[in-house]
Amino acid sequence: MTGADSGNPVLVEVIRGALAESRHTGAVAISDAHGRLMLALGDVERPIYPRSAIKAMQALPLIESGAADTFALGEDELAVACASHSGDKVHVEAVQSLLAKASLEESYLACGAHWPISEDATRTLIWARERPRAIHNNCSGKHAGMLATAQHLGLEPRGYERPDHPVQVMIARIISETCDVDLDPSRMGIDGCSVPTFALPLRALARGFARLGSGEGLPPERASAARRLFHACFSEPAHVAGEGRFDTIVLRALAPNCFTKGGAEGVHCASLPKLGLGIALKIDDGAKRGTELVISEIVAALIPEAREALSGQLDGEVLNWRGTRVGRIAPSEALRNAMRALASERAR
Amino acid sequence: MTGADSGNPVLVEVIRGALAESRHTGAVAISDAHGRLMLALGDVERPIYPRSAIKAMQALPLIESGAADTFALGEDELAVACASHSGDKVHVEAVQSLLAKASLEESYLACGAHWPISEDATRTLIWARERPRAIHNNCSGKHAGMLATAQHLGLEPRGYERPDHPVQVMIARIISETCDVDLDPSRMGIDGCSVPTFALPLRALARGFARLGSGEGLPPERASAARRLFHACFSEPAHVAGEGRFDTIVLRALAPNCFTKGGAEGVHCASLPKLGLGIALKIDDGAKRGTELVISEIVAALIPEAREALSGQLDGEVLNWRGTRVGRIAPSEALRNAMRALASERAR
Repeated sequence: MTGADSGNPVLVEVIRGALAESRHTGAVAISDAHGRLMLALGDVERPIYPRSAIKAMQALPLIESGAADTFALGEDELAVACASHSGDKVHVEAVQSLLAKASLEESYLACGAHWPISEDATRTLIWARERPRAIHNNCSGKHAGMLATAQHLGLEPRGYERPDHPVQVMIARIISETCDVDLDPSRMGIDGCSVPTFALPLRALARGFARLGSGEGLPPERASAARRLFHACFSEPAHVAGEGRFDTIVLRALAPNCFTKGGAEGVHCASLPKLGLGIALKIDDGAKRGTELVISEIVAALIPEAREALSGQLDGEVLNWRGTRVGRIAPSEALRNAMRALASERAR
Repeated sequence: MTGADSGNPVLVEVIRGALAESRHTGAVAISDAHGRLMLALGDVERPIYPRSAIKAMQALPLIESGAADTFALGEDELAVACASHSGDKVHVEAVQSLLAKASLEESYLACGAHWPISEDATRTLIWARERPRAIHNNCSGKHAGMLATAQHLGLEPRGYERPDHPVQVMIARIISETCDVDLDPSRMGIDGCSVPTFALPLRALARGFARLGSGEGLPPERASAARRLFHACFSEPAHVAGEGRFDTIVLRALAPNCFTKGGAEGVHCASLPKLGLGIALKIDDGAKRGTELVISEIVAALIPEAREALSGQLDGEVLNWRGTRVGRIAPSEALRNAMRALASERAR
């Protein structure tokens, strides 16, 4: 809470005409499972809230507790438990099915309601003269997973979202172990969907995602749980976000070589299982429009054969309301230089 | 287009729990009509695109040309010509009326279509199974004003949005004269609504707004035109933005002591006619959520009796989807220090 600038480099520029109209600073860490940093751009030690980018970690107890087996959850239900979904019919049905298998009702969801991310789903609700419900909240799958875990363990499901509920305590311990970092209770915030979010450094987050993807440095049952969740997300990419959205596009195009997951306030994480690397990014101002370009640039630098599949994500057009191109969203010089260095290090 | 940080100070912090989760850097200038700076926070010399913040300047030819008199435009029509409106019924009707008085049809509008800013208006269109039209574009009033100007002057209205159309040439000259700055054609961009936007320094913009409000330093007919537009906006504040929106709230609460107008990509300008001051702000990353708090803080520092009316704008809550407060949007230390200095300078 100082008045000083973060000092992080500009990563993305929004260009109109010949001028950079707006710019996004930020920091990014790329790490292996042992915590060796392949890239540290900006301040990767300052704790940031990971928000929805770590939903796959928050879903680990669903597997580790045995709930997923007991309730015979399918790939679609596991994928939606890791999702920031669009609230489309397929998502709502997967969450309903997950809840039903755990003998729970929609009314248990504590995430609050918002209009679906999907415009089609929003229009459908409006046509039906309905309001959105908690199940349309992009986090409802994660919440259903937490509820199913509580139910399976014989815990009171009501209050599952509170920091002192055993399911949340379990999740905090798993994040701490996976990222090899102490979670400071004074650095806990409440997420938009009412569950705790603990601030941790990008460096630690990147290491956690390296471990999730490769299994290295994780106890065997956790490595297996992570593998099962990633497999579900790669198998059902539309359940992790939704049609037309970044994470779904990347998961579909690059499975099983690249897992990505965005969160609110400019956070995005990724895991490159074959390379044993994890990536964690925070845009300082919280803008989403910068994150997807940065993640795409990094993935394309590390997996050259992915560049073509990502081309639509690497060219950020700025259009006017008539659809004419009037600018572009582009990597900054600092990011381009870092990517060049990364690509040549990778090629060695 | 360098990779370097802007070096501008953090103005606004978004706080969750005990941590600043995101932050917005930016620059702000406060000037009198003579170009004397009362405040320069950050880089106020770098040219920025003013976007919709200068719609009142872009509407000056509508008055100066005599079009407003010939077509007997009312306060609502003049206010909507200066507006980024919500696309509600009142706005659409005012634009239709403006066009009808100039014997023009909706099809002349070149601004492109987008869903109304107003959720009610959007729902109404969806219920009617309609798509938004150009008239729902928040800029349609500005465009109707440009068209009426062309019509009155006997110019071809088609193509009125192009940089070389006489109406746009006239507007560029007026901006240049009012802000006392040369407009560099190499620093012209195309706005979201397809008309030109010329980059100019915040320092010059602030001076222009000081002149618009006080009339000082303007030729008499321009001072009179600006007075008429401000009077229209103060009389019909709901036409300048829409119910529940910042500029409408401030215009309604503080008329005739404070005119404010926001633009895309984090720009906001204001004029304090009685104090003879103009204010121009740009948030580097283009986020709107920072601008309204900064403008409110500045206005409250300069007009102490406005603080109560602005209290709802000074307390930026961050709510989760259940409506619980989980954070806040707050002025940074740098901004708070600058505001203290400003208030004491003002009190002297």
